Amino acid sequence: MQHLIRTSDFSKEEILSIFEDAREFLKFEPCEILKGKIIVTLFFENSTRTRSSFEIAAKRLGAEVVSLDVSTSSTSKGETIFDTVANINAMKPDAIIIRHSECGLPESLTGFVDCPIINAGDGKHAHPTQALLDLFTMYEHFNGKTDGKKVAIVGDVRTSRVAGSNKRLLPTFGMEVCFVSPECFRYEGNDFKTYTKISDVIDELDVIMSLRTQLERHNQVYFESLNEYAKDYCITNEVVGNRDILLLHPGPVNRNVDISDEMLKDPRCKVLQQVTHGVAIRAAVLKKLILK
Amino acid sequence: MQHLIRTSDFSKEEILSIFEDAREFLKFEPCEILKGKIIVTLFFENSTRTRSSFEIAAKRLGAEVVSLDVSTSSTSKGETIFDTVANINAMKPDAIIIRHSECGLPESLTGFVDCPIINAGDGKHAHPTQALLDLFTMYEHFNGKTDGKKVAIVGDVRTSRVAGSNKRLLPTFGMEVCFVSPECFRYEGNDFKTYTKISDVIDELDVIMSLRTQLERHNQVYFESLNEYAKDYCITNEVVGNRDILLLHPGPVNRNVDISDEMLKDPRCKVLQQVTHGVAIRAAVLKKLILK
Amino acid sequence: MQHLIRTSDFSKEEILSIFEDAREFLKFEPCEILKGKIIVTLFFENSTRTRSSFEIAAKRLGAEVVSLDVSTSSTSKGETIFDTVANINAMKPDAIIIRHSECGLPESLTGFVDCPIINAGDGKHAHPTQALLDLFTMYEHFNGKTDGKKVAIVGDVRTSRVAGSNKRLLPTFGMEVCFVSPECFRYEGNDFKTYTKISDVIDELDVIMSLRTQLERHNQVYFESLNEYAKDYCITNEVVGNRDILLLHPGPVNRNVDISDEMLKDPRCKVLQQVTHGVAIRAAVLKKLILK
Repeated sequence: MQHLIRTSDFSKEEILSIFEDAREFLKFEPCEILKGKIIVTLFFENSTRTRSSFEIAAKRLGAEVVSLDVSTSSTSKGETIFDTVANINAMKPDAIIIRHSECGLPESLTGFVDCPIINAGDGKHAHPTQALLDLFTMYEHFNGKTDGKKVAIVGDVRTSRVAGSNKRLLPTFGMEVCFVSPECFRYEGNDFKTYTKISDVIDELDVIMSLRTQLERHNQVYFESLNEYAKDYCITNEVVGNRDILLLHPGPVNRNVDISDEMLKDPRCKVLQQVTHGVAIRAAVLKKLILK
Repeated sequence: MQHLIRTSDFSKEEILSIFEDAREFLKFEPCEILKGKIIVTLFFENSTRTRSSFEIAAKRLGAEVVSLDVSTSSTSKGETIFDTVANINAMKPDAIIIRHSECGLPESLTGFVDCPIINAGDGKHAHPTQALLDLFTMYEHFNGKTDGKKVAIVGDVRTSRVAGSNKRLLPTFGMEVCFVSPECFRYEGNDFKTYTKISDVIDELDVIMSLRTQLERHNQVYFESLNEYAKDYCITNEVVGNRDILLLHPGPVNRNVDISDEMLKDPRCKVLQQVTHGVAIRAAVLKKLILK
Repeated sequence: MQHLIRTSDFSKEEILSIFEDAREFLKFEPCEILKGKIIVTLFFENSTRTRSSFEIAAKRLGAEVVSLDVSTSSTSKGETIFDTVANINAMKPDAIIIRHSECGLPESLTGFVDCPIINAGDGKHAHPTQALLDLFTMYEHFNGKTDGKKVAIVGDVRTSRVAGSNKRLLPTFGMEVCFVSPECFRYEGNDFKTYTKISDVIDELDVIMSLRTQLERHNQVYFESLNEYAKDYCITNEVVGNRDILLLHPGPVNRNVDISDEMLKDPRCKVLQQVTHGVAIRAAVLKKLILK
């Protein structure tokens, strides 16, 4: 049995096969390959968007989804999450999708279950289906020729699990990742080039991946307001110019903070296509893990 | 593609065809015409009743329902409703059902989607499926002979979207609509006869449609209590006597304020039949908009 | 039409037939016998665990589940639960599953519906599917030879609906029930032997059914803390020794209060098997009540 905790749980070949399935699912033809399967979602952090994406993906394949309302569950009766998951597992679901604020928690649960666990985001660690859909969007855009393409991940790299998952995944497809962020949001490591200004690197870029800025995730006040951050890091038409750059964002976008209204309407911005791809990628992941 | 924002979005012929389908669905025979379809509900105002009615309608036809918990959704992360809906739309649902406190909002969303939007109530503007089920209940009761029938809508006409939708719909089926309400709840317009007392018009009526009184919807205190309102507007056995009058109410009924306990048990009161018809009408609307 | 309010609603023959179906469902073979059926869950007390168990059971048989969010339903608009249920019933579901803090409420609702009502716990009165799954677990363990087996129900017997349902059900299968509890948690009746210490009866026992201790259910402070209670009533390895005793608990377990960590890992403890059996028993109950 295979889990999806981080993108490296899949080989490059497996990922290419997931892309093939995702492409198939994007045709929206009737499909019931997961009919009779029960998928449990367990979101300890709210995420209507990711949860709905998984739920729609599962239902498109004919599976049934049981969404546990974790806020009112036994964990509030003092039960540990390990006991909660062992109990859910005893109901014999075919997969458990979990989001939690604690890094590593989904992985530590794998010892308590007989079905695949899918990490839908664990703290600032990983968000593998997001990285897979990001890569898929680039892969399709470049017709599979991702080799040598240069991607800047812009914004709050330090606390971003999206950055965390992408920086590991994209190099396996030959892409070069760099970061652009203010000092306070900087990734703590030397394995990726880091820029303070997007103008320092923009001429080399094929892709800009803007991140959601969440000042509330930090203990300190680094910026008086999002507007102050936006001055230097918002992706505007002025920044991008007429360069042939693909613009991505995991959503929800802070309008005119992460990306300007104008750029959101620009055909180079594929934010909504990422959402569509997300459903297809998650469907392909569910198929792979449940049917294998 | 067709949306249902207000009842006038359907022609009389379309409504009759919806009634035919609703009649069919009331036989509760196995049916899977919407199998594989994904319907998203997006209720910004709570309404267990209307939401359940739509959900049951959809599931009776084999569709899958994804209910977005709007209170915990990205709108709470500062995302606009337009972005939220554009994102949901990017997940390629087959219909979106929306309730919102703002008049006109569902209509303004139609520009952001590729699938039908169904208005499940927008402020005091419209509640088209409610008006359709009300009309259907009358249509079936009078064996299709609605022409010339006189309907009094009683109560808080001013803030009622049920009144708003019915006053436009019923005349297209030859029915004459009048209002009965205290000064403070009065409809602001001259296109419908308005009475202060139900006794002034009761002898001419074929149908009484009582509304739910919601004092909290008004900024001013018009009545010390619902009991004071009830004195003049509660539909009791004393008011109706032995007249051949059909009694309707969109629910939930304030017992002994809107309608007396006694009249709720009276065979002329079809409040629960309206609920049953509601599921069938909503199923027929979903079929029409999704399969067309 | 048959409801399940208390275990005595089923004859011994009916229960054996439910066990046969449950055994079948434990094979997890594709099954759609409830396809097209709509089951409504109405939980006025939170219970993620029981609700999920019913939901998974229903979905395993191909039924659709509509979970009413009771906290935001019309009951909060002043509607009585009887009107709420009459309205749900008018939507023509195939079964209603209800949990409520008031003893006897599910039974009093049977007069308002045209479909089976399943009691998923009413105050301290009954929790029939829990007792059925407990009995099923014992029945399977003893290969049907339950006659003469002695069961001690340990803990807060006074407020436990699990104890309430089991003490009536188990004797019909020839089992002898006794209680072990501190004075303050004691069952008020003389029809069952009651012990203060588990050591007084342990040598005669075939089964220990530990209960969840919920100090907050009592108006008085009987124990300073759960630890004080645990000193005498926690089921530890020391208490059980190497006796051939089956250990059960309805969950969620207070670790090291109701049962020790060590005993939870012991093969004699079948707590997780009970959870698995719960889904199968509930599926069998749904089949019986809906298809009959």
